[in-house]
Amino acid sequence: MIPSALEALIEALRCLPGVGPKSAQRMAYHLLQRDRNGALHLARALEKATTTIHHCSKCNNFSEQEVCALCASPKRDAGTLCVVEMPADLLMMEQTQCYRGMYYVLMGRLSPLDGIGAKELHLDRLIRRVQEHPCEVILATNFTVEGDATAHYLATLLQSAGVKVSRIARGLPVGGELEQVDSGTLAQAMLERREILI
Amino acid sequence: MIPSALEALIEALRCLPGVGPKSAQRMAYHLLQRDRNGALHLARALEKATTTIHHCSKCNNFSEQEVCALCASPKRDAGTLCVVEMPADLLMMEQTQCYRGMYYVLMGRLSPLDGIGAKELHLDRLIRRVQEHPCEVILATNFTVEGDATAHYLATLLQSAGVKVSRIARGLPVGGELEQVDSGTLAQAMLERREILI
Repeated sequence: MIPSALEALIEALRCLPGVGPKSAQRMAYHLLQRDRNGALHLARALEKATTTIHHCSKCNNFSEQEVCALCASPKRDAGTLCVVEMPADLLMMEQTQCYRGMYYVLMGRLSPLDGIGAKELHLDRLIRRVQEHPCEVILATNFTVEGDATAHYLATLLQSAGVKVSRIARGLPVGGELEQVDSGTLAQAMLERREILI
Repeated sequence: MIPSALEALIEALRCLPGVGPKSAQRMAYHLLQRDRNGALHLARALEKATTTIHHCSKCNNFSEQEVCALCASPKRDAGTLCVVEMPADLLMMEQTQCYRGMYYVLMGRLSPLDGIGAKELHLDRLIRRVQEHPCEVILATNFTVEGDATAHYLATLLQSAGVKVSRIARGLPVGGELEQVDSGTLAQAMLERREILI
């Protein structure tokens, strides 16, 4: 009853994260019924991206070149290396316009339950890079359980290799009110209080 | 900072229904990071489907042939035509194994707010088909506001063309208990009660 090419498309759409059989079917019907141009366009974009996009050999971010524009820029300070989980985190950091150092993108976080360990994240590449070009490492992984565990693991590894390691600060957001912040954040802000030097 | 091929892929993924900028980004990262084979496979499936799948000239369902297997089958009863909204509805109906007639798939429903009127649904094709091959029309659109409106509109059109039109029954589900059914369904089941003839 279902044409084989349609069945194949529904099956292929399931490689997208968060797409189950029902939404794959809905997507396939939508594309064939209302947006065939969009479907062809998507097919070409997928092919182009999978063939041209690799990982930057220095920061591990997605890049079409061997070394990405950011790593190749002479304006960046090679004395600090900010470690983030995902490319989107790097973009957020860049939007602050307060950091001019280099980056390393883990492309994930330690997550033993999902089978992602130190080997899958290629942490050895990060260690080697820091050993070849000594610098301060700023751990900017998320403040989730997994992000924290990743930061802790990296800190242990890097400190034993004699590298200066820091973690971005945890506390109340700018404009944050004590009344509205969750108690975990407030507790951390108390623990990690800083002396005021005038 | 984002390679252009990656940006193009994120943009292209947004043609999928229910996919906004954030999930498009997540999908693109996932494909490039963990499932490049899946991405290429999807690209090929999209191209194949858009080039080979058309609408059956009789029932309007998706088909790789000019006339789909179901419409071409000599075993089906041409005396009844069941009108459904989507191909998935046709499949559900076939699973009941109690209907041996023909189908017409609207590929949608009347939905003025989304700009889908009688013209967009090509209802004239359905009317012409019934006029050329007179039969009983069974309206099996959903019992939603839009599905009901579509059925009502079609019934008016078809009856003025002298066609016998019926609507599938509304009532308690098989195995349904009065205590658990919603009051709207129960009210309809009361209104549409049938005389018991022994």
